[in-house]
Amino acid sequence: MRIALDAMGGDKAPEVTVAGAVRAARVYDLEIVLVGDEALLRRELGKHKVDGLRLPIVHASQVVGMEEHTIAVKQKRDASMVVAMRLLREGEVDAVASAGNSGAVMAAALFTLGRIPGVLRPTLVTIYPVPPHYCILLDIGVNADCKPEYLLQFAVMGAAYAEKVRGIARPRVGLVSNGAEPEKGSTLVREAHELLAASGLNFVGNIEGNDIHQHKADVIVTDGFTGNVILKLTEGLVKFLAHMLVRQAVGSWRDRLGLLVMTPGLLLALPGLLLMVPTLRQTYRQWDWREIGGAPLLGVDGVVIIGHGRSDAYAVQRMIYQAKIAVEQRLVPTIQEEIQRVAQARSVRMEGKS
Amino acid sequence: MRIALDAMGGDKAPEVTVAGAVRAARVYDLEIVLVGDEALLRRELGKHKVDGLRLPIVHASQVVGMEEHTIAVKQKRDASMVVAMRLLREGEVDAVASAGNSGAVMAAALFTLGRIPGVLRPTLVTIYPVPPHYCILLDIGVNADCKPEYLLQFAVMGAAYAEKVRGIARPRVGLVSNGAEPEKGSTLVREAHELLAASGLNFVGNIEGNDIHQHKADVIVTDGFTGNVILKLTEGLVKFLAHMLVRQAVGSWRDRLGLLVMTPGLLLALPGLLLMVPTLRQTYRQWDWREIGGAPLLGVDGVVIIGHGRSDAYAVQRMIYQAKIAVEQRLVPTIQEEIQRVAQARSVRMEGKS
Repeated sequence: MRIALDAMGGDKAPEVTVAGAVRAARVYDLEIVLVGDEALLRRELGKHKVDGLRLPIVHASQVVGMEEHTIAVKQKRDASMVVAMRLLREGEVDAVASAGNSGAVMAAALFTLGRIPGVLRPTLVTIYPVPPHYCILLDIGVNADCKPEYLLQFAVMGAAYAEKVRGIARPRVGLVSNGAEPEKGSTLVREAHELLAASGLNFVGNIEGNDIHQHKADVIVTDGFTGNVILKLTEGLVKFLAHMLVRQAVGSWRDRLGLLVMTPGLLLALPGLLLMVPTLRQTYRQWDWREIGGAPLLGVDGVVIIGHGRSDAYAVQRMIYQAKIAVEQRLVPTIQEEIQRVAQARSVRMEGKS
Repeated sequence: MRIALDAMGGDKAPEVTVAGAVRAARVYDLEIVLVGDEALLRRELGKHKVDGLRLPIVHASQVVGMEEHTIAVKQKRDASMVVAMRLLREGEVDAVASAGNSGAVMAAALFTLGRIPGVLRPTLVTIYPVPPHYCILLDIGVNADCKPEYLLQFAVMGAAYAEKVRGIARPRVGLVSNGAEPEKGSTLVREAHELLAASGLNFVGNIEGNDIHQHKADVIVTDGFTGNVILKLTEGLVKFLAHMLVRQAVGSWRDRLGLLVMTPGLLLALPGLLLMVPTLRQTYRQWDWREIGGAPLLGVDGVVIIGHGRSDAYAVQRMIYQAKIAVEQRLVPTIQEEIQRVAQARSVRMEGKS
């Protein structure tokens, strides 16, 4: 298997991308095509032991910056992410992974690879942690305005990803709404509910905001507007609560004095805390997005994994692993089959009604 | 001032409603009209010292249950909440407070009082805590499908409430979106953004999910679908994180042993923790919805405060206090003036364009 890595994509590229590729090539025994400035990449490779590893370089003279407008991918025909997509289209590689400007990566994928036949809108998923479980949340911001048919297809693609890549058998699909009953929700959600109920997916109905953390569904479907708010609200709230704890401890002179008085006790409690480290570490890992490394852009005609801009070498390694699994598990053909199956089932129902 | 209390409304009515009314009558020197089953209320009043307090009873033979369908208010013409609304419409009281079935209270208010002239849709607000501050979030579930004009009016009403009732001078108004830039968002949000920018309100632009806890706005406007998801996700996540902490401490035998080993240290740390109690208590109060007690149904032609179904006596007391402030501060006339001002400003702009 050959995976193309956009070696120039990410806040700390090409340093961490090359380091991550070296690790992935070794650990997963893959051929990883580094796409980017050849001289630069050769220099970075020189810092690592690469004997016996398959790490060819494909030169690309341009880079789309992390803050650049998406339109840049139209103008920069020799940008690393665009070249990587072309390699995929031409069958030179089996997948592309990039931690670059995610809007630009999506545009490059869509322009170069096109959509899987029948797919209305590509979508980006995220792995939403609810330790010890997680949910697959989609869409998370690509499609702010949605139609019921888009939500149905998001469900189909999310379920295929859950089953094939994440190994969840017959994943439970939930639809974000403002009430549990089928008649609750916006017009969009009520119509999507009907489509989902008739889809043959393992649809468990509406999911309210306070259901998400109860792991009532493996795949949580919503429009990109709501999904983006859910994702960012979660990040913001967790950060806020952590800050609140700190403020609690050092907010006033009385709190600081309290902390001082507590110190001997806390030191005495330390050995007990050390015993808790394994569970602490496990919890931390479950919250750590680097373990996942990246999520696929679903609906484009090829495996494209998008990672965080702030990825480090380990996150890059894991992003490449995601690409490997998606190829091995035939994610793209599965989505194509499932999209067709649902469309056919629907047209049969329509005929039955008329 | 006379405030009608739906004495039969709430999970623990009439026990806590009467107790809360007694406290409110004493503390705020108000006349509180108890609406409900006279015999029952008289018995409850007998449990309290009520000498010198103004607590008349108006009999209502029916009750709308907490789980009943909203339609019940149409059928039960003598339900306590309906009778209370009629007292308000007829000028017998200055405001209504209810911790009853909130959908039914809204319907009763709308049917009996009607809308303030010019208001398209009534809306329910919530006080969203971001200690030491808070935001006013609306709509939180009444209007799942919105038009840009609704969001504009929610902003107008939310700002009037923030200024008059909560004493925030020139409140900053933010619009929930999936990106900070004005061109980000669903079609609804982009159009609402334009209206808000031209409204004369102190509009600070789009608010992303992770901005909410940074207190970038005093009034946060969104459609009822998204508002409901924000509210319930917040509740669910806070609960989930608390459970996660507990699971961390007692999850495995090793963790439980760790807790045991930590105990002497934690006991030694206790005096320091006691010093932190004042700040802890303050933080707790800032998170405690009972302090607010209830939020107004904005846009109906009269002051109607809706409390939590699970209100206790203190929450009922505070809910009545909210009604008092809203009447004193002329919330309803202010909303009427502001709705007219914004509508006129808009029609002047329209004429200027044509």
